[in-house]
Amino acid sequence: MDRVQIFDTTLRDGEQSPGISLNAAEKLEIAQQLARLGVDVIEAGFPIASPGDFEAVQAIARGVDGPVIAGLARAHAADVEAAFGAVRDSQRPRIHTFISTSDIHITHQLMATREDVKAQARAAVAHARSFVEDVEFSPMDATRADLDFTAEVCAIAIEEGATVVNIPDTVGYTTPEEYAAFLRGLYERVPALAGVTLSVHCHDDLGLAVANSYAGVQVGARQVECAINGIGERAGNAALEEVVMLLATRGDVAGVTTGVNTREIARTSRLVSRLTGYPVQPNKAVVGRNAFAHESGIHQDGVLKERSTYEIMDATTVGLEGNDIVLGKHSGRHALRQALEELGFTVTGAALNTAFQRFKEIADKKKQVTAMDLEALVTDELREEMATFALEWFDVEASSRRPPHATVAVTTPEGETVEGSFTGDGPVDAIFHAINTATGVDARLREFRVDAVTGGQDALGEVSVVLELEGQSASGQGVATDILEAAGRAYVRALSNAVRKVRAAEAGADPRAADAAVTPTP
Amino acid sequence: MDRVQIFDTTLRDGEQSPGISLNAAEKLEIAQQLARLGVDVIEAGFPIASPGDFEAVQAIARGVDGPVIAGLARAHAADVEAAFGAVRDSQRPRIHTFISTSDIHITHQLMATREDVKAQARAAVAHARSFVEDVEFSPMDATRADLDFTAEVCAIAIEEGATVVNIPDTVGYTTPEEYAAFLRGLYERVPALAGVTLSVHCHDDLGLAVANSYAGVQVGARQVECAINGIGERAGNAALEEVVMLLATRGDVAGVTTGVNTREIARTSRLVSRLTGYPVQPNKAVVGRNAFAHESGIHQDGVLKERSTYEIMDATTVGLEGNDIVLGKHSGRHALRQALEELGFTVTGAALNTAFQRFKEIADKKKQVTAMDLEALVTDELREEMATFALEWFDVEASSRRPPHATVAVTTPEGETVEGSFTGDGPVDAIFHAINTATGVDARLREFRVDAVTGGQDALGEVSVVLELEGQSASGQGVATDILEAAGRAYVRALSNAVRKVRAAEAGADPRAADAAVTPTP
Repeated sequence: MDRVQIFDTTLRDGEQSPGISLNAAEKLEIAQQLARLGVDVIEAGFPIASPGDFEAVQAIARGVDGPVIAGLARAHAADVEAAFGAVRDSQRPRIHTFISTSDIHITHQLMATREDVKAQARAAVAHARSFVEDVEFSPMDATRADLDFTAEVCAIAIEEGATVVNIPDTVGYTTPEEYAAFLRGLYERVPALAGVTLSVHCHDDLGLAVANSYAGVQVGARQVECAINGIGERAGNAALEEVVMLLATRGDVAGVTTGVNTREIARTSRLVSRLTGYPVQPNKAVVGRNAFAHESGIHQDGVLKERSTYEIMDATTVGLEGNDIVLGKHSGRHALRQALEELGFTVTGAALNTAFQRFKEIADKKKQVTAMDLEALVTDELREEMATFALEWFDVEASSRRPPHATVAVTTPEGETVEGSFTGDGPVDAIFHAINTATGVDARLREFRVDAVTGGQDALGEVSVVLELEGQSASGQGVATDILEAAGRAYVRALSNAVRKVRAAEAGADPRAADAAVTPTP
Repeated sequence: MDRVQIFDTTLRDGEQSPGISLNAAEKLEIAQQLARLGVDVIEAGFPIASPGDFEAVQAIARGVDGPVIAGLARAHAADVEAAFGAVRDSQRPRIHTFISTSDIHITHQLMATREDVKAQARAAVAHARSFVEDVEFSPMDATRADLDFTAEVCAIAIEEGATVVNIPDTVGYTTPEEYAAFLRGLYERVPALAGVTLSVHCHDDLGLAVANSYAGVQVGARQVECAINGIGERAGNAALEEVVMLLATRGDVAGVTTGVNTREIARTSRLVSRLTGYPVQPNKAVVGRNAFAHESGIHQDGVLKERSTYEIMDATTVGLEGNDIVLGKHSGRHALRQALEELGFTVTGAALNTAFQRFKEIADKKKQVTAMDLEALVTDELREEMATFALEWFDVEASSRRPPHATVAVTTPEGETVEGSFTGDGPVDAIFHAINTATGVDARLREFRVDAVTGGQDALGEVSVVLELEGQSASGQGVATDILEAAGRAYVRALSNAVRKVRAAEAGADPRAADAAVTPTP
């Protein structure tokens, strides 16, 4: 069986989804989980795009062992240098550089010529190879480009030392047959392609991202670029979990396998969903709540009689069942630490004290605290460390018969306690306005969502908000048994993120990145 | 260009998703919208499964003009008769009968032999044809079945008069190449197949439902079975909106087109999401919130320079933009009725009065009431008519410093007002328990979710709950600017649905349906 490399771009293409604002600690947490999941390559970000991106990629290159750590770069010297600066401390650094080969992009986007594109591709790959051994090249929008010209550019990239050639379906336009034909055409035109790794990168605009990736593997691609929960630009990238489970279930047909530990899939999906604030719909393949459920009677009946009658995958293989960690109000600090370690979190010292305190509060209200509750709590605490404002307390009077009124107390970044009150349209509206009043920050709510962490009457509520402040949008999440408390926590965190973004924008970005504000990506 | 028939199974396979409990009025509303969308066939339900299913299919057969109305039936005489009874009043009735042809199903599920299957298929199709001209036959789990045997069964079905032969990938196991090869194999083995319509029915367990459907079309299938938002068993069916937009965007390659009015797609998606309580994730192709958004700078830049640089579809073609209905607090009854008519809702008399009153309440709190707000309100009122309990008023005191307390008043089905109080873990928990106390019904919350109807500070909140009562689960939704009010409305509606289900279960089902409690479907 041939090994297909799984290249995860959750932190790069995924992070470009509207409203996602992961801080460096959250990105590191996701990267560590991706390493546990066993992906081969982590595309950690786009270092030239902002100082925050650079620092996050650097932290991942320094802190995450195992996978190749890649940084994205346009085919410009400054981009390549920034990417190298960010990934250089990794044990296995990669620079991923790209430029469009479609005439529509060359004309309307780059306002250049085909000759310019060839020269830039040659220079960028050569420059990248002067820094690292492992260089990936992508002809952006290849699936809408001229095959002969794209082949010419790929041949140049390989000549200059590219080790991976990735063919992106940037706008999600191609179909399996057409994509396979395009890749076969490249193999015919570029004999040297057989000596490097061919990679696929597919978007899901027409619902074909996984099928197109699979078609690529069938004609010889040995790297698949994908993202957890299929997040990414517009309809997103091929979903990592679908690609991996397709190859696990049907890979024998194509004679391929991956190195992914499928039992970490469900947990990785939950972590990414929680930190990005992007929900997974119940009917999402592999990681949706219903992916393994059977409502109609006979299916249940069939499952009982013989699992394979209606199941082609076992829920335990993706880590959805078999986790029986349950703590209660009498569980001690030791039991908590042990449970957290089983979940892959190393929590000690002051962080363990805080976690234990939150655990006790929750355990007082819930009979059982499950593995999923613990994950939510620890992730929640991770965010707390990064917040600059914090919610101290709130009081709300709500009624269908008069306007609701809220009073809140918030700790400022300077350690002061400020209070504010507001009478709003609803209790959540009143709390959010009261927080604005208390902090003197005039943020506007853009999005608001509540999910339950687990089922049941005493479930933890998880609130996601997106707000806007001086043209910057930022998200925040909060977890509590009381959804008003969760909402308040989420709002002050989003506020903290927004204030940080506004200050960073005022401070100004790397001058080399002046035009990276309009940033091309595959 | 060849016309591909779009067969919508939202109300049959989609409705089998866990926790969905649509009542007859809601099913009719969805069917009417499907007719506006221009689907060719509506599979309205599985009439033998329960009296509620029968009545809903009958109401749709009588009330919805245009599409073929199909009823599902196992290969049993009683099923076929129930299906006929339900669809007979349609202008274009169809009976869809099925039986498994895979050995794994025949052995473990049917506990029968291949000879039994042939005999049952023959009898069921002949019986169905004695009632209607249009009969569809599905060999369930065909993609895991022996090709020769499946071909034999399909030939029998055609011999007995089947007009459509549908090949289901019941467990979502096949791949595009394999599925195409299977269908080509059927055409070779069954010459008569060329004289009827070949149909595809694909599940998305491995993320391939749309690609497999497209592969089927490429080898000659001219009916695609799919569901709005891709809902259905487990990971769901091929998403109608993805299949339709794929054929609209790339159908020229396969030389096909559909009769769907794509501008109704977004509205249909919202209606189904709202009534089923099934959210659509932001990165869902075609209908997700981000499907047409571009976060990274250059994409925005590119879109401005030349739309086609990064867009292969225009948001207006799926009805996502271009709707500029906005009402305000000074808008009158006439303006409201006109706006509703533009949205496809005919609301008159008492219903218009109620809608106008709700509109005024909302308009007092929101500056602008948009088309999406109106849709949410009208759908909300639709549910009100069916509810047996109603929330009169509530008072809540919530705080992070003491347990929250709620008092509620609920109108019972008998018209009485009952009150209840409760001190809970959170304000929502307190309201739900207070409603239990007031009504004396001991329901348990299973799921809870809140979404904002539109963005912005003053957005309407939409709450979905699923609860369990005496082994029956039921869902309810509620809309209000105050999420506690929306939660209370959602809970009493779920309670009404649950009570109705419990009573129906006590009353007992059609004796012919004794074994339909364990119900096989493709």
